[in-house]
Amino acid sequence: MFSALKKLPFGKKALAAATCLSILAAPAMADDKVYRLKMAEGWPTNFPIFGDSPRNMAKMAEEMSGGRLKITIDSANKHKAPLAIFDMVKGGQYDMGHTASYYWKGKDPNTLFFTTMPFGMTAPEQYAWFYHGGGMELMQKVYKRHRMLSFPGGNTGIQMGGWFRKEINSLEDLQGLKMRIPGFAGEILAELGAKPTNIATGELYTSLERNTIDALEWVGPSLDLRMGFHKIAPYYYTGWHEPATELQFLINERSWKKLPKDLQEILRVAMRTASYDMYTQSTHASGENWATMKQEYPNIQVKRFPDEVIEAMRAANTKLLKEKAEANPMAKEIIESQAKYLKQVRAWTNIADKQYLDSIAGE
Amino acid sequence: MFSALKKLPFGKKALAAATCLSILAAPAMADDKVYRLKMAEGWPTNFPIFGDSPRNMAKMAEEMSGGRLKITIDSANKHKAPLAIFDMVKGGQYDMGHTASYYWKGKDPNTLFFTTMPFGMTAPEQYAWFYHGGGMELMQKVYKRHRMLSFPGGNTGIQMGGWFRKEINSLEDLQGLKMRIPGFAGEILAELGAKPTNIATGELYTSLERNTIDALEWVGPSLDLRMGFHKIAPYYYTGWHEPATELQFLINERSWKKLPKDLQEILRVAMRTASYDMYTQSTHASGENWATMKQEYPNIQVKRFPDEVIEAMRAANTKLLKEKAEANPMAKEIIESQAKYLKQVRAWTNIADKQYLDSIAGE
Repeated sequence: MFSALKKLPFGKKALAAATCLSILAAPAMADDKVYRLKMAEGWPTNFPIFGDSPRNMAKMAEEMSGGRLKITIDSANKHKAPLAIFDMVKGGQYDMGHTASYYWKGKDPNTLFFTTMPFGMTAPEQYAWFYHGGGMELMQKVYKRHRMLSFPGGNTGIQMGGWFRKEINSLEDLQGLKMRIPGFAGEILAELGAKPTNIATGELYTSLERNTIDALEWVGPSLDLRMGFHKIAPYYYTGWHEPATELQFLINERSWKKLPKDLQEILRVAMRTASYDMYTQSTHASGENWATMKQEYPNIQVKRFPDEVIEAMRAANTKLLKEKAEANPMAKEIIESQAKYLKQVRAWTNIADKQYLDSIAGE
Repeated sequence: MFSALKKLPFGKKALAAATCLSILAAPAMADDKVYRLKMAEGWPTNFPIFGDSPRNMAKMAEEMSGGRLKITIDSANKHKAPLAIFDMVKGGQYDMGHTASYYWKGKDPNTLFFTTMPFGMTAPEQYAWFYHGGGMELMQKVYKRHRMLSFPGGNTGIQMGGWFRKEINSLEDLQGLKMRIPGFAGEILAELGAKPTNIATGELYTSLERNTIDALEWVGPSLDLRMGFHKIAPYYYTGWHEPATELQFLINERSWKKLPKDLQEILRVAMRTASYDMYTQSTHASGENWATMKQEYPNIQVKRFPDEVIEAMRAANTKLLKEKAEANPMAKEIIESQAKYLKQVRAWTNIADKQYLDSIAGE
């Protein structure tokens, strides 16, 4: 780093005139009423990391506002409608939601793009796109149509490609492979001949154990450890399909507008911090849980998909994105913005993080 | 990612009972006085990115507090004492500083460890160490002795290894090499036979052009572009010595204690967000400026140091850290904490980010 200390001619004498903390007259206060917001989260009660993010946010907002902004959170066990969060916030039954944008592609196909994309940006890259590359503006444009605001709500980091009972050595091994993998990634694997499926969470372990499915993806060590998949499916494939899964805070536009300016800013900053904080927490939990997994089950084998499989996935991804871009002008605008930004920022990541991890910091 | 939508049995009926934003009685307000804090930053007026971080922070704090917390910032052009920020905040001439911890190793050798370390953690890893791995507690312990608090203040991301006029092909090429590289990294290069030196910022370009020095390091494309080094030194070496340079907010303990609880939380969260935000801004600016550099000067060659050079740097780093750990128990505690945490978190980064950047996301 540059040494700022050499940047200027300086005297050793500090400015004695600099005044300290001083208490002056009262400012124009907004108001001192208590504003209460109700939030529906998409996760069950006590769900780790995902559930910590909105609670961390609500705690910061309440403390920063001196108790003037109180946010209560209903888990999915309470509202019993995780599939309806979009509608409940849009309709005003809840002021806010904590969920993921890509769950709502059935409501609006363009919500798909604001969570993560296969072969897309990493978390630091995606935050740069959101906050400096036009991403936030595009996301607000999509949600404005539904009279809602949307903000980043916490990142998992790179998700793993999943747990496989058998090794994948070629494209042939994907034919007919029953894999629990939802969403856009599932569409890509279907193009390659696999049979993507979805299975209730409580039945996942048994389904894998009894060969009802051959493979599944979940998140990464941060949340996979407690699911126990590593005990029955030894091949852990590295990630390709969700390189920066960002959760989302949704807010009803009218609820937002009712807040005074200072509480809007408190809410905005609390959401932004909680989002970054979840990325930090995920990084920590992944490191910690990966160490536990390896210690308890030394037979876990980390694998990378063969090049021919990755190339075929990429080709399918390109084809599906092209179809989506042709479907509507807004999708085209978002896809092009992401592609252009990724190209620029990845050139930097490749000479910075990639080079560092490859050679400089190698074991 | 797991599909939360499948996690629970759910009805389509949202809980109609969920109440909307409602305005209730007034809470116990702290007070409505205006608190003014004076901050000295270590950078000249209008210094990009580094100077944006404290301003972003002060703006958030003022808006979130409805004008009750006002922070004014004196640049180094005004206080003329960037080398004295530590003392000025400790002594109370300023309530706060925006600087970097490792500048103060002459005041307290253990401040060295809270900025970045050669071959150390990347930014996401280091944030995880600060907030979940005991890093914050160790930093506060060091600064407590000086009656100050210290918080992360913004990250540059991985810094480049520097601009070289000639290629480095072996350890031999480092013998007598005059390089502007301050601090701990300079000590490492001195062990290898180079001649590290420091030069006033305004004279750097000319010194490099006239061969007064053979090489220099600055930051990375985010701040290097405007310095113009790429026009006269075509070899741009990848980073090893500052993988996650974190700036720092310093606060006088008494100034902190005078703030009411809600303003303390506003200040804490504003600093935390500004710190993360600078990492995001650095990522963006590096991508953007790297694209400009390559376009304007296609002759820039990105190089990695040869393995034998990296191994020698590593060995010197290990030797110097060992000496520092032996010097005092607090240094030993910090060095061991970082080494242990790095080992755990890097195992995750290697199967996540490294694998993704290496193969999955390759061009």
